[in-house]
Amino acid sequence: MLSFNSTDAEYLDELAAYVAVPSVSRDATEETMRTAAEWLADQLSFAGGRVVATSGHPVVRGEWLGAPGAPTILVYGHYDVQPTGSEAEWRTPPFELTVDGDVIRGRGVTDDKGPVFIVLKVAQAFIAQEGALPLNVKFLFEGEEEIGSPHLPAYLREHADELAADLVISADGAMWRPTEPSLSIASKGLVTLDIEVTGANADLHSGRFGGTVANPLHALSEILAGLHTPDGRVAVEGFYDGIPELSDERRAAIAAVPFDEDGYRDGLGLGSVFGEAGYSTLERLWERPTLEVNGVTGGGKYTVIPHTARAHISCRLVPGQRPDAVLRAITDHVLDHKLTGVRVAVHPDEGGVPAYTIAPDHPAIRAARAALEHVYPGQDVLLAVIAGTLPATALFEEVLGAKTLFFSFSTADENLHAPNEFLRIPRLREGMRAWEQLWRLLADGPHRLAPVAGPGSRERSA
Amino acid sequence: MLSFNSTDAEYLDELAAYVAVPSVSRDATEETMRTAAEWLADQLSFAGGRVVATSGHPVVRGEWLGAPGAPTILVYGHYDVQPTGSEAEWRTPPFELTVDGDVIRGRGVTDDKGPVFIVLKVAQAFIAQEGALPLNVKFLFEGEEEIGSPHLPAYLREHADELAADLVISADGAMWRPTEPSLSIASKGLVTLDIEVTGANADLHSGRFGGTVANPLHALSEILAGLHTPDGRVAVEGFYDGIPELSDERRAAIAAVPFDEDGYRDGLGLGSVFGEAGYSTLERLWERPTLEVNGVTGGGKYTVIPHTARAHISCRLVPGQRPDAVLRAITDHVLDHKLTGVRVAVHPDEGGVPAYTIAPDHPAIRAARAALEHVYPGQDVLLAVIAGTLPATALFEEVLGAKTLFFSFSTADENLHAPNEFLRIPRLREGMRAWEQLWRLLADGPHRLAPVAGPGSRERSA
Repeated sequence: MLSFNSTDAEYLDELAAYVAVPSVSRDATEETMRTAAEWLADQLSFAGGRVVATSGHPVVRGEWLGAPGAPTILVYGHYDVQPTGSEAEWRTPPFELTVDGDVIRGRGVTDDKGPVFIVLKVAQAFIAQEGALPLNVKFLFEGEEEIGSPHLPAYLREHADELAADLVISADGAMWRPTEPSLSIASKGLVTLDIEVTGANADLHSGRFGGTVANPLHALSEILAGLHTPDGRVAVEGFYDGIPELSDERRAAIAAVPFDEDGYRDGLGLGSVFGEAGYSTLERLWERPTLEVNGVTGGGKYTVIPHTARAHISCRLVPGQRPDAVLRAITDHVLDHKLTGVRVAVHPDEGGVPAYTIAPDHPAIRAARAALEHVYPGQDVLLAVIAGTLPATALFEEVLGAKTLFFSFSTADENLHAPNEFLRIPRLREGMRAWEQLWRLLADGPHRLAPVAGPGSRERSA
Repeated sequence: MLSFNSTDAEYLDELAAYVAVPSVSRDATEETMRTAAEWLADQLSFAGGRVVATSGHPVVRGEWLGAPGAPTILVYGHYDVQPTGSEAEWRTPPFELTVDGDVIRGRGVTDDKGPVFIVLKVAQAFIAQEGALPLNVKFLFEGEEEIGSPHLPAYLREHADELAADLVISADGAMWRPTEPSLSIASKGLVTLDIEVTGANADLHSGRFGGTVANPLHALSEILAGLHTPDGRVAVEGFYDGIPELSDERRAAIAAVPFDEDGYRDGLGLGSVFGEAGYSTLERLWERPTLEVNGVTGGGKYTVIPHTARAHISCRLVPGQRPDAVLRAITDHVLDHKLTGVRVAVHPDEGGVPAYTIAPDHPAIRAARAALEHVYPGQDVLLAVIAGTLPATALFEEVLGAKTLFFSFSTADENLHAPNEFLRIPRLREGMRAWEQLWRLLADGPHRLAPVAGPGSRERSA
């Protein structure tokens, strides 16, 4: 057993320096992104850590390959973070790691800087205390996860041989909830798009022109209201195409998961939950695709008829849905609206991601379950679904031929992508012990990861 | 006849200094607002011009009362301007008066700094060239017109005696279009409100919570889409209450107005006009009330379910509608929506304004028509409606017992409240000659304004 013998304060001081870098991939400077990447590369000095330029924000690479004959894993994570949103809603400055009782707060502490920090400390402890890792480990940290990983596909394809591995372990992702350990056996896909409605050639005075021209905000509202039926189904024809019907077995398995719907509702401050008719909250979360309007802009709080109005939309996809087909269905549905006096355009974003799954009896899931049982003795490990999207997973499967295990010590209630993002401090040490176990189990014993054919074995034999 | 013997360049230099003060009543500093007010007070030095504190932005007052026995008028205007909106959409800096061919551009040039400048130059020319004005003139310029004149009612009531007049002449308002002179015999009223939809207690990750909670933007879209029927009528029960049916006579009069609907449509860059079914564009503009969504905000271009979404709405009212009743009807309609998992609040703004009318045969309209015929020989003077709102008019009637004549040389197509606001340069001299005529005609001759009973006469005899 490794000894994680730094004090909490020492660990948190170190993590604080990383959180202090405002590496918001959407709008940070190149220099800021590089600062975050360099912090990571320094941490990987035992593995030849380095910052590698790409067409976008750089990636951080490293590898320790001193365990011949042992399996090879690729550890994935990201150093970029979401925008802060309204800073007024933060109780503490977003880029100052702040301890508050048994949590730490700050943008990125749980998505994904804290979870990546855990694996770094585990690897460093192995090297310091045992002089070696139990298996071969490659590291790949990207800086564009929060903007849809636009340059990762090309990078992976160009470096497929170097990155070959028997398994990808993602330090991104999240445990489903704080009450018990869980593993994710699937994640949802993602497509995003904008709808833009344009009226006159300039903003118009609502008095001098009001009532005589179509108002783009009225038209946009009608379009958006038409995306769902009143009972919460997505009204877009073809949206659900390809999705297998939810089996009685899966329904029963989900129904057996202890889930306090009242607590979920109250925790969000809601009077009631809401979603697609005919499904429970957990079924909606794990098994059903969604279409959410994320943002609407147009005009302002003054007497204007804006000449343009815009909505941003994202859909989370489940297995069976094809990203391109979903985008086409939405585009057709939107353009089908008969609207007078406005022009409507749909702008699909590139980089659609299909849903991803890993079999519950995959050796990686079996090893991960054992590692969690070791750290959380006496607790059942839930098999859950990440309703969020990790775009890299489908890519890893396609390009490296490797499945991805989500092994994050983030928890889904920790205000990811929202103000006041936080991480439970005990998760740091729990995570370290779990990663240690996971690596040992994958390297040896009944859950040993069998090297698979493909570029992974090719490189190891080179 | 007065001689307006400054060059255009001299006039424009002077006006440029006034336009350079960014007196945006919504968000300018107290000092900026005072700077604009002081510029006006200096221009009124012949009339004891002064800046007078109120509970809000100051007013500018002045009076020249050297024409005993002649009628007394109160000249009204405002020195505040609208926000610039997106500065990227301005072709020239908004607070730099820029000459571009036969127009000048800049925030406030046409609403209302240019039109107020005209009357200042006329009064100064009378004093310089004739040593007197033809009638008694009081001046009242406010700094809060663009935010609904919140402090004007109290100020007027407290100073009703000092401000008493036989007629108010507003330098605010606008000619309907550039092709012929026009006078306004009515203006629409105004009520404004916000609709706020709240969901969870924080913004949520659209993956981790999507599909299980109501999205405030979906709910708001449904509410907004429900405010109109597909044929352009306002769907709010009671909205049209109290409005007399449009008479055949009025319909015929409007139909007789030369109006190039194709040109109107093309000028706005639209494929077609749109509005309430059963009415022509001019009827919609002049005779029918409107409900317009001016702005929507919520979330952003990232994968979030915003916890709140908000819309700003304004309604233009016609005679017969009561502002309070309209706000109540909208509130009831909005709160009637059955929506699960969100809270809906309606926030009506204070300061609702009813519609305003002045009889076509009122002496002020007759004199104004004659003045315009003098300046625009051979052209018919159209009697039109200001589809916009001048909140002060109803107040002047209530508090001073005086009707208001709109006499502005702004034109409604000059991007009021929008980027690239402009004013036609010839309007400046046309306006000066027209105001000169108007004052002479009101003072003497067949259109002489008869002093009316009320506070006006009280003060003149004091």
